[in-house]
Amino acid sequence: MSGTAQIGVTGLAVMGRNLARNFARHGYTVAVHNRSYAKTESLVTEHGSDGEFIPSETMADFVASLERPRKVVIMVKAGGPTDAVIDELIPLLEEGDIVVDAGNAHFPDTIRREAALKEHGLHFVGTGVSGGEEGALNGPSIMPGGTPESYESLGPILEDISAKVDGVPCCTYVGSDGAGHFVKMVHNGIEYADMQLIAEAYDLLRLGLGASAAEIGEIFAQWNTGDLESFLIEVTADVLQHVDAETGKAFVDIVLDQAEQKGTGRWTVQNGLDLGVPITGIAEATFARALSGSVPQRAAGRAALPAHAAEWEVPKDDASRAAFVEDVRQALYASKVVAYSQGFDQIAAAATEFGWDIDRGAMARIWRGGCIIRARFLNRITEAYERDQDLPLLLADQYFTDAVASGLPAWRRIVAGAAQNGVPTPAFSSSLAYYDGVRAERLPAALVQAQRDFFGAHTYKRVDREGTFHTEWSGDRTESEA
Amino acid sequence: MSGTAQIGVTGLAVMGRNLARNFARHGYTVAVHNRSYAKTESLVTEHGSDGEFIPSETMADFVASLERPRKVVIMVKAGGPTDAVIDELIPLLEEGDIVVDAGNAHFPDTIRREAALKEHGLHFVGTGVSGGEEGALNGPSIMPGGTPESYESLGPILEDISAKVDGVPCCTYVGSDGAGHFVKMVHNGIEYADMQLIAEAYDLLRLGLGASAAEIGEIFAQWNTGDLESFLIEVTADVLQHVDAETGKAFVDIVLDQAEQKGTGRWTVQNGLDLGVPITGIAEATFARALSGSVPQRAAGRAALPAHAAEWEVPKDDASRAAFVEDVRQALYASKVVAYSQGFDQIAAAATEFGWDIDRGAMARIWRGGCIIRARFLNRITEAYERDQDLPLLLADQYFTDAVASGLPAWRRIVAGAAQNGVPTPAFSSSLAYYDGVRAERLPAALVQAQRDFFGAHTYKRVDREGTFHTEWSGDRTESEA
Repeated sequence: MSGTAQIGVTGLAVMGRNLARNFARHGYTVAVHNRSYAKTESLVTEHGSDGEFIPSETMADFVASLERPRKVVIMVKAGGPTDAVIDELIPLLEEGDIVVDAGNAHFPDTIRREAALKEHGLHFVGTGVSGGEEGALNGPSIMPGGTPESYESLGPILEDISAKVDGVPCCTYVGSDGAGHFVKMVHNGIEYADMQLIAEAYDLLRLGLGASAAEIGEIFAQWNTGDLESFLIEVTADVLQHVDAETGKAFVDIVLDQAEQKGTGRWTVQNGLDLGVPITGIAEATFARALSGSVPQRAAGRAALPAHAAEWEVPKDDASRAAFVEDVRQALYASKVVAYSQGFDQIAAAATEFGWDIDRGAMARIWRGGCIIRARFLNRITEAYERDQDLPLLLADQYFTDAVASGLPAWRRIVAGAAQNGVPTPAFSSSLAYYDGVRAERLPAALVQAQRDFFGAHTYKRVDREGTFHTEWSGDRTESEA
Repeated sequence: MSGTAQIGVTGLAVMGRNLARNFARHGYTVAVHNRSYAKTESLVTEHGSDGEFIPSETMADFVASLERPRKVVIMVKAGGPTDAVIDELIPLLEEGDIVVDAGNAHFPDTIRREAALKEHGLHFVGTGVSGGEEGALNGPSIMPGGTPESYESLGPILEDISAKVDGVPCCTYVGSDGAGHFVKMVHNGIEYADMQLIAEAYDLLRLGLGASAAEIGEIFAQWNTGDLESFLIEVTADVLQHVDAETGKAFVDIVLDQAEQKGTGRWTVQNGLDLGVPITGIAEATFARALSGSVPQRAAGRAALPAHAAEWEVPKDDASRAAFVEDVRQALYASKVVAYSQGFDQIAAAATEFGWDIDRGAMARIWRGGCIIRARFLNRITEAYERDQDLPLLLADQYFTDAVASGLPAWRRIVAGAAQNGVPTPAFSSSLAYYDGVRAERLPAALVQAQRDFFGAHTYKRVDREGTFHTEWSGDRTESEA
């Protein structure tokens, strides 16, 4: 029994609904299903003009309405609800059918599910979809994992509905099992870092220049015409210039300064720790959100700790102010390069760990459109990996080396000035510390290793010959090979 | 069937052997057992003069040699080996007996095991033991969890063998199930931060003064006579003054600068992320180790990135040099206060999350002796929690507020100088950023929340009234209550 729908979507909350509409608008016949039929009906009633939908009340009818091999996109809450839908689907599907999880699953769950569905002869494709509601409808960035075989039939459809940049789809095959959801997780981690860096730049301009939100919005709008051009900079310019209708104040000034985090930043940092990849920009960004929400600690801190001059000593003349703005811009760009370099390092380490063959240049390419971190800058990353697909450190690519070197004096002035003037810039500072660390001839980690051997007999290696050594610290201090 | 040994130890590698000897030296009759009997025999042969040992070849004989309620200390590798020993013990034990895991278990495993053994009518005590081999033998810091009932009979024995400071044992009941191993984990996380801060201070002195390891060792020895007095500062002074016999060079200069991490730092940071507690000092320390071990990245960074003046522009006259040393000392102390403040915050958050009633002042007290982070400074922490046991932020205690305030100008100079001079100080910088963040009137997290509402409809709160709001960014920009 085989139907005529080329693709199906189950789970018709706003993301699923918009994806289904996107498929329909691209000429696909779309089977649609939702636990409560009302949402299915309203989709067809309200958006029937988008294209051809085949609504079903039951999962069995839904599956039956699909042509073989069936392609079922699940768009429900990550975790238990996803497993429940998969369990319901398995007995209804046949060998070679493709189950797509387009939700924000944690990649180890995707690895587990892919293995389980393979036992049933089914393909499981965990795919990252970035761009929010608007992206789902008009063209998201899509990061599918799974088997290459499943991509042969599914890929062209996903590429069709994805965002396009210069005619190139923002969708490509990422790698086996959990690779797609992994890359989406790192994308979100980088998004955390990018947003925190922008927030710090805003804070520097606010406290350094005593500028209003609207004035800073204009600066961001100006920045968006250069190297920093990106969706997030554009959003920032827009948000900062928005006025709260109720109070007539700048909108950003009436928003409570307690950020939330929904888990993917946390997952990214936890995985960076597991892999031993120093993704300090993402970590500081995630912890900055946590700090902003640490209400009792902040109340105690404000009450007890000495207040600090709120205004930076930037001279008031136009030239000095313009130079300060340019310093912040260069520091932001350099810090951003570090955050992305760290994120791409993490992708490389995970690829080794989990046996994924991930083309990092292609990842930068499919992030150029549809997703939150879309930016002009990503072309430079793609080019860097085209020059050397095994590039061990993005920062070491000639383009980025030069870009950061030219901004280095400004970056140092800003981080030093923030420390002197009491402006918290954890992500700016941490990125500079990483830069100075990764290029250091010698790190004080040697002292850490010596201490660990002293109190825990953890051994050390020497700079001058192979081997692992231990010194008898509490005895005659002779060295022995361990 | 009941024996005469008051306590038993199974697993006689160096830590277990030393713990067994410590019990014996305190007059307890100690049942001893090891998978291979040779180690049991050699313990009794070599150290029989320490006291009374009852060696057994089999687990059954070992258990039979113990008086009731039996107290069995397991000291084997964390993970599978611990579970294997527990499984072997369960059928041999009787209701009310106490199983103690003194290894470095991850606290969720301890929670799981405690629940499982309770089903068998057994007490399970997961306990942190800090101080390495030397501590195990001569007096460690001991952090036992489990039931208060088990502590009644087990506690006095553990207090007996623990380190003493001013006659006070470095052992106290921590809290139920996984509390003991949790607190030990945070102890280790703080140890990571402390070691990284010391390493950065060393690096600043090395690059700022162009000083030799021995000279810096003398500075640390001097620091060890003041507020910074601690085991780790003492070890640092000692290690820096040690000369490699083979080359005649300073020992630290022949050690490879690639640090390792054995998991507890990583666990601490991962838990901080789960709890949403910004433990940035521990995170930067853990990532600094990861960076030091990122060999291909460092090689690429060294080759591609512009070299930097290796020497800080500290004037060469004695007064300037002394002032610089004092600045580094004050920056180190202030950063250390932040790292500990963050760690104690994490303990408080975990106590709420897991239902543990942890006395933070008592934790600082039992860390004063035996363990790696033992320090004069811990008395100040105990006093702070004695003044206010619900203190929301250690930094906000009057003593620490004053201490940090007096060092603040130096701290700012050092962090700013490191940024200007290219010395990587991730933990110093991050601690200062935390300090400036936790006392900030307003954080740029408001902008982050506004952005999240713009592109993901994640909603925001307002500063001027209750509720959760969303602005129709792509429409007429009206605000609605979500």
